[in-house]
Amino acid sequence: MTLTVSPDMELLPPNEHEVAALDAWWRASMYLTVGQIYLRANALLLEPLTADHIKPRLLGHWGTSPGLAFVYAHVSRLISRTGQQCIYLAGPGHGGPALVAASWLEGSYTEIYPDVTRDAEGMQRLFRQFSTPGGIPSHVSVTTPGSIHEGGELGYVLVHAFGAVMDNPDLLAVAVVGDGEAETAPLEGSWKGISFLNPARDGAVLPVLHLNDAKISGPTVLGRKPPEEVRALFAGHGYDVVEVEGSDLPGMHHRFAAALVECWQRIRTIQQSARTGAWDGERPRWPMIVLRTPKGWTGPHEVDGVAIEGTFRSHQVPLSGVRENPAHLALLEEWMKSYRPSELFDELGRPTTGGVTPDGDLRMSASPHAGGGDDSPSLVLRDFRQYAVELVTPGVQQVESTRRLGQMLRDVYLDNPETFRLFCPDETNSNRLGDVLTASDRAFMESLLPDDERLSHEGRVMEVLSEHNCHGWLEGYTLTGRHGVFATYEAFAMVSASQTVQHSKWLEESLVLPWRAAVPSLNVLLTSTAWRNDHNGFSHQGPGLIGVMLNHRAEVTRVYLPPDANCLLSVADHCLRSRDYVNLIVIDKQPQLQYLTIDEATAHCAAGAGTWEWAGNADGAQEPDIVLACAGDTPTLETVAAAQILRERLPELRTRVVNVVDLMVLPRPTDHPHGLSSELFTRLFTDDVDVVFAFHGFPGAVHQLVHGRPDADRFHVRGFIEHGTTTTPFDMTVLNRISRFHLVMDALNNSRTTLPGADELRTWCRHELDRHAAHVREHMEDLPEIREWRVTARG
Amino acid sequence: MTLTVSPDMELLPPNEHEVAALDAWWRASMYLTVGQIYLRANALLLEPLTADHIKPRLLGHWGTSPGLAFVYAHVSRLISRTGQQCIYLAGPGHGGPALVAASWLEGSYTEIYPDVTRDAEGMQRLFRQFSTPGGIPSHVSVTTPGSIHEGGELGYVLVHAFGAVMDNPDLLAVAVVGDGEAETAPLEGSWKGISFLNPARDGAVLPVLHLNDAKISGPTVLGRKPPEEVRALFAGHGYDVVEVEGSDLPGMHHRFAAALVECWQRIRTIQQSARTGAWDGERPRWPMIVLRTPKGWTGPHEVDGVAIEGTFRSHQVPLSGVRENPAHLALLEEWMKSYRPSELFDELGRPTTGGVTPDGDLRMSASPHAGGGDDSPSLVLRDFRQYAVELVTPGVQQVESTRRLGQMLRDVYLDNPETFRLFCPDETNSNRLGDVLTASDRAFMESLLPDDERLSHEGRVMEVLSEHNCHGWLEGYTLTGRHGVFATYEAFAMVSASQTVQHSKWLEESLVLPWRAAVPSLNVLLTSTAWRNDHNGFSHQGPGLIGVMLNHRAEVTRVYLPPDANCLLSVADHCLRSRDYVNLIVIDKQPQLQYLTIDEATAHCAAGAGTWEWAGNADGAQEPDIVLACAGDTPTLETVAAAQILRERLPELRTRVVNVVDLMVLPRPTDHPHGLSSELFTRLFTDDVDVVFAFHGFPGAVHQLVHGRPDADRFHVRGFIEHGTTTTPFDMTVLNRISRFHLVMDALNNSRTTLPGADELRTWCRHELDRHAAHVREHMEDLPEIREWRVTARG
Repeated sequence: MTLTVSPDMELLPPNEHEVAALDAWWRASMYLTVGQIYLRANALLLEPLTADHIKPRLLGHWGTSPGLAFVYAHVSRLISRTGQQCIYLAGPGHGGPALVAASWLEGSYTEIYPDVTRDAEGMQRLFRQFSTPGGIPSHVSVTTPGSIHEGGELGYVLVHAFGAVMDNPDLLAVAVVGDGEAETAPLEGSWKGISFLNPARDGAVLPVLHLNDAKISGPTVLGRKPPEEVRALFAGHGYDVVEVEGSDLPGMHHRFAAALVECWQRIRTIQQSARTGAWDGERPRWPMIVLRTPKGWTGPHEVDGVAIEGTFRSHQVPLSGVRENPAHLALLEEWMKSYRPSELFDELGRPTTGGVTPDGDLRMSASPHAGGGDDSPSLVLRDFRQYAVELVTPGVQQVESTRRLGQMLRDVYLDNPETFRLFCPDETNSNRLGDVLTASDRAFMESLLPDDERLSHEGRVMEVLSEHNCHGWLEGYTLTGRHGVFATYEAFAMVSASQTVQHSKWLEESLVLPWRAAVPSLNVLLTSTAWRNDHNGFSHQGPGLIGVMLNHRAEVTRVYLPPDANCLLSVADHCLRSRDYVNLIVIDKQPQLQYLTIDEATAHCAAGAGTWEWAGNADGAQEPDIVLACAGDTPTLETVAAAQILRERLPELRTRVVNVVDLMVLPRPTDHPHGLSSELFTRLFTDDVDVVFAFHGFPGAVHQLVHGRPDADRFHVRGFIEHGTTTTPFDMTVLNRISRFHLVMDALNNSRTTLPGADELRTWCRHELDRHAAHVREHMEDLPEIREWRVTARG
Repeated sequence: MTLTVSPDMELLPPNEHEVAALDAWWRASMYLTVGQIYLRANALLLEPLTADHIKPRLLGHWGTSPGLAFVYAHVSRLISRTGQQCIYLAGPGHGGPALVAASWLEGSYTEIYPDVTRDAEGMQRLFRQFSTPGGIPSHVSVTTPGSIHEGGELGYVLVHAFGAVMDNPDLLAVAVVGDGEAETAPLEGSWKGISFLNPARDGAVLPVLHLNDAKISGPTVLGRKPPEEVRALFAGHGYDVVEVEGSDLPGMHHRFAAALVECWQRIRTIQQSARTGAWDGERPRWPMIVLRTPKGWTGPHEVDGVAIEGTFRSHQVPLSGVRENPAHLALLEEWMKSYRPSELFDELGRPTTGGVTPDGDLRMSASPHAGGGDDSPSLVLRDFRQYAVELVTPGVQQVESTRRLGQMLRDVYLDNPETFRLFCPDETNSNRLGDVLTASDRAFMESLLPDDERLSHEGRVMEVLSEHNCHGWLEGYTLTGRHGVFATYEAFAMVSASQTVQHSKWLEESLVLPWRAAVPSLNVLLTSTAWRNDHNGFSHQGPGLIGVMLNHRAEVTRVYLPPDANCLLSVADHCLRSRDYVNLIVIDKQPQLQYLTIDEATAHCAAGAGTWEWAGNADGAQEPDIVLACAGDTPTLETVAAAQILRERLPELRTRVVNVVDLMVLPRPTDHPHGLSSELFTRLFTDDVDVVFAFHGFPGAVHQLVHGRPDADRFHVRGFIEHGTTTTPFDMTVLNRISRFHLVMDALNNSRTTLPGADELRTWCRHELDRHAAHVREHMEDLPEIREWRVTARG
C-alpha cells in the first residue's frame, strides 16, 4: 500500500453545511439504534406508535451508542475529505446497534446481507433481527461489517488497534475506549503501545477515550477523576491529550471536528517527518482525544421523575415496559421523532444522509483491512528441512530444539519483511529464538543507550513484558491479514488465556461467514515448560492452556506436542501455512534428546502419531503386552527410557512405544477432524491392551480425549499433577510420578502377562526411587542429574 | 487493632550512626544473597575461596536483590523508630534470596526452621538449601517467612497489598514494584487501588517503584521514559511522587531515608486527619516512591570487558562458570568480601547487624498479618435456613436464587463489619446481590455526585470493572485472615483465571507448612452463566473456569453447582466457614425453578449428590433403564423436564434422576476426598446402566472426572459445546444439544430396553425441535419461550 493522501493537504474544520450533514448522519444512526432496540414494525414511524410495534423482549445497550455514532460520523467526514484509510474499533462493543446502523447507512450491510435492503422493508428487518433468535448478536461481533473487535470481553480495543496498524503504514485505527473498559487491567496495560510504534513503518492509532462517567450501575474512576489528573495520566503515557466536552449542539460538532482535524494533522506531521528522514528519533507524542459527553446523550432525560440521560441508568434500555406503559410508549415515540426521521430517510425509507459517507473501500464498514485483508498474502517459507538436526541414531544428540525454530523464524523475518512478526514477553533469547534478532532488532521507541543489544526503533521483534499486549497485538495483526507467533512461558500463557478463548470464539463464528476472508492462524508457542522450570519453581509450572484449548470447537483447535527439533520444524511449517486456527505448540527450550530424522519427523507429524519401533520390542503388528504412549518432550524421554529399562531387564515383556505429536488424533473423528479412524487408533493402541500414557499436561486432558474410544478405562495417564518446586529436571518427573521408574512400574502393574522377573524389576525401580529420594534429602545440590543418562535405541 | 503510634510523633532522618547500621544490615543481606546463589561451603569466607566451595548449578536472580534489601533495611529502621506495623511485598519475587536473608538476619527464619541456625553452620545450610532439591524455591514463596506474595507470575503485588490493608487500619504494606512487572497489564491496572482506599478505616500502601532500567534481556518502558513522563503518569493515578535516584553511598541512604520519613509522615497525616474527622472528603494524594538504582547494584561492574552492573546482564547470575574460571572465582571472592563480612558476623557467624531490626512481631518477616492473621476470626454467620425459599412442590416457584444469597450476605456484612467484603466487577445489583447494599454502600474515593446510588467513601462493597483487581484484592484480604467473595460473570472469570491458578498453588504449598495459619477460603461465585447470557451473546458464554479448577490438587479444589436457592444457601454457608480452599460456586441469577426444601437441600448438599425420586419413576433401589444425571441449574431444569416427558409419554421406561451439587463426588475417593465410595457411586449411577449426564460446563470435564469409574464409557455427557449467540434461553439449550428433547432422545438411544412407544416419542421430539427451528427462522423475536413450560413433580 502507498500513501494516498498528499501529506500537506489542508483539512479544514467543517462549515455549517458540513455540520448539518454530520448531524443528520448522526441522528439517522441514533434513530436506527433506538429502532433496533425497540421496534419490530412501523420502522419509519409513519403510523402512530402502538404496543404492537414494540418487541416483546427489549435488549441492547443505549448508553454508549450515541457517542460511538458521533465519533464514527466525524471520522467518516475526515475520510471523505482526505482519503485516509481508517478502521473503527468500538471498545464498548455492546454499542453494537450503532455500528450496525453505520454499516446500513453506508450501504455495506446490504452489500453483504442482501436481505436487509436499504429501504423501509430492510430497515424493519434490520430492527427485527437485532438481538433475536436467528438474528444477529447484540455486540459489535463477527457479523458486523468492518469489525475486527467484538468488545464483549472488555479490555482489548487498544491492543487490537495497535496490532492492526503494525506494518500497515497507511492505516489509521480509531479506537474508542469506554471509561468502563478503561478500568480493566488489559486496557490500562495497553496505552504503552506507542512505545513500540514506529511512525515510518507503522500506521497510527487514535484513541478516543469516551468518558461518559458511568458504567452499568455506578461511576467510573476516570469519569470522576479531576480532569487535570486525567490529562497528567495520559501525558505520562506519552500522549498529547486533546479534550472535547459537552452536549451542546451544534457546538459539539464544531469542537470535535476541530479536535479531529488537529489530531489528524499531528499524526500526518509525525508520519511525514518520519518517512522523509526529518525525524529526530524521539518517540512522537501521538495525539489522543478525551471526549466527555453525557451517557445516553440525546436519549430520555428523565423518566418517572428519575434522571436517565447522563447517568448509569441509560446503560441498557432506558425506557422499560413500553408495551405496557402508554406514557413510556409516548416517550419512546417522542424520542425517536426527535431525530426528525423524515429529514433522514425518503418516503421509501432510503437514507438521504450520504453527505459524510466515504466512497467504496474507504467506508470503515467496508475496509479491506477489517475483512481479514482481502489480499492477505501467504508467507514465503523456505524448505524447513534445511534447519533440521542431522540425526544418525535416535536418542543420542542433545539439541535445543527451539533454536532450530529460531533459525527458521529468522528466515521468515528476512523473506517477509512486512507481513510477519514474533511477539514475546521479553524472552526471545531465553526461549532460544534469538536468531531472529539477526534478521530484525527488537522494537523500542523509548530512548536507546549504547549498551543496548539488538534494540532499535526499526526493530520488528516485539518484546514487552505483557502477555496481554503480545497476544492482543498478534490478534490485531492476523485479523488484518498478516502472520505471526506468540511465544511465551507455558505457565504464563494462562495470563492471556481469556484472550485465547475469545479469539477462538471469534474464529468459530467467522467460519460460517463467507464474506470474511480466512485469516492467518494465531500461533501460540509455549516454551519454558512445566517440566523444565525446575530452576524457577512452582509458580512457573503449569500446563493449563492445553485444557483451555480443548474446550473450543474442533474446527479451530489444534494442539501439537513435538518431541524433538525436527518434529517442531514440521509442525511449525504447517502452522505458519494455516489459516483460521488457533495452533498451540508446546516444546521446551532446554537441550533435549533428538529422535527422528527430518523425513521421519515429517511423516510422523503428518500422521499425528505413530509407533516408534526402535524404542519398544513388539515388532510390527505383533500384539504388545503393554502400550507405552507419550506426548510431549519430557514424557517422551521418560517413556523411551522406561522402554529401554524394560528391554534390558525384562525382554520377555512385549512393549510398544507410541508417540503422539498431534493431540487431536486422540478423540474420535466425529469429535475432531484429526481424530484417528477406529482402524488407525486400534493399530496404535489396540482395542484392549492397557496403555500407560505419559502426558505433558494434566492427565485429565487425555482422559477426556479418549472418552468414547474402545475401553477407555485402560488408558492410565501420568502427567503433571501439580507438584513442583525449584529442583532438578529429573526430580520434577519423580514428584509428579511420571519418571521412567514410575512408568516401568505402571507397565508391570498393567500388562496382562505376569513375568518371572517382574517383581525383581519392581523392587529395582523402588530402590532407584529411594536412592533418588535419599539424595534429595541428604545431598541437596550435589544430586547427580539422572536426566543425562544415555537413552539408546534397540540395537 | 488500635493505633500504636503517637500520630504526632516526630520521626527524624537517620544520623550517621544509624546510616552505618542501615548500611551494615544491607551489606549483610547482600552477602547472604550472593552466598545463596553461589556457595555450598566456606560460608564466612574464612578460607580462600575454591571451586569446591561453589555450587554445581548456579541459580537465582541477583539483579533485583540489592534494591529489595535496600528498601527492606530502611523500612525496618522506620518500624524500629515508630512501631509502625508493616508487611513487605516484593513484586519482583525472583529476588527471593534477599527476603530469605532478611528473615534469617531478623531471626524469624531460625524460629520457624530451627535447623537453619543463626550461626555459621546455619548460614551454610541457608546457602545450600537455596534453589536445590529438597531445599527451598528461588522465589519469595510460601516458605518465606513474612510473605503473602510469591512474585513469580508478575503483576499482582499492588492488588495483594491493597487487599491486605483493607479494614486493617494500622497496617502499612510496602510494595516494591519492579519495572519489568510494571509493564504487565494486571500491575498497570492496579495503581487505581487508592481510588477505593478509605484512610479512616483502611491501612495504607506505600508503592516503591523500583526502576533499575532493565528486565531479563532489555530495557523497560518506565525505565527509559523521560522522568517527567513518569512523574505525570503517577500524578495522574493520584499519587504524590517522591523520587530517589543514584548509587552513591552513603548519600543514597540519607536520601532514601528522608524520602521514607516524608512518605510516612504524609501517610500519618492523611490517616490522622481522616480518623479525627478533619478530612475534607477528597481522595488523599497518597505518597509513592520512585527509586532509581542500577540493576545489580554493588555487584560486579564489568566481567570480561562487558558491563554487568546497571544492565540487563545482571538479572540472574552475573558471574558464570565460577567453578571452571579462576578469574571469575576471584571476582566472586572480591565481590563477597566487598561487603566486609567480618564487620557483619561474629566469629561464630552470628549476625551483628541488629541495629535496624524491629522487635518481635514488628519484624516484617514475623508479621502476624502475613502469617494468615494468627487470630483470624471465623465469620459470624446466622442460620442460613432463614433465607430459604418456602417450597411446597418441586418445580413450581420461579425465584432468583442469588437474591437469597444477597440477603444472606447482607447479614454477613452487618455481623462482620470489619472482616468480610464482597468483590465484584460492577455487577452486584446485576447479579441480584443488591441487598448487601442496604448493609454497606459501594466503596469509592473519587468525587461523589448527588445522583449516585449506594456509593460512598465509607462503603465496603468493592466494585471495580477489573476482575484482576477484584480477585487480587480478595486474595490479599484472605491471606491476612479475613473473609470474602468474588462474584463475577462466568465467562469473564477466565480473565483472572491465572490468578485463581496461582492462588491455588499458593494454598497447595501452604498446606504442608504448619507455621502458616489456615486462611479463609477464596470463594468465587459465578453468576450470569453461559446458559443465561442469551441476551449478551457468544463472548459472554464460556464455562471454562470449572476445567481450570479441576487441574489443581484435590486438597484445595472445590466446585459446587447448586441447582436452586436453597442448595445455594447451604453451599454458601459451608464455603464461608471453610479455610484453605478455592471454592467455586456456579449458579445463574435469573429466575429459576426451585426444587428442594431447605432441609432437603441441606441433606442433598451434604451428600454432594442424590437421587430425586420425585423426578424419575424408578423407585428406590429398583434398577432403572436409564440414569438421567445433571449438574447445574439449566441442565437440571432440562433433565427434570426430560424426565417428565418420559414419565408422561413413555411411563414404561424406568428413569432415575440424579442431581450432582458437589462436582468432586464424581472422581474416585483416591483422587478427591469428596469422591463417592464405590458403593455410594453405584447406588446413584449403577455399575452398568447408561447415564445421560446433562452438565453445566464443557462435557470433557465430566469425562475426565468419571475416568476410572465402572464402565466410564456409559456416561454420555451433554454440556456447553461452544455454540451460542444472542437468542432465547431455551434456544441456547437447543444449540448445544442439551435441551429436554435432546435428553429424551439420548435416553431412548442409550437405554437397554426397546419399548414400543420409543420411536413415536423420538419422532415427537424431532418434531418439537423442528417446530422450534422454524420459529427461530421465521418468527424471530416472536418466538414463544419454551423455558416457561411448567415442570411438575411425579404426582
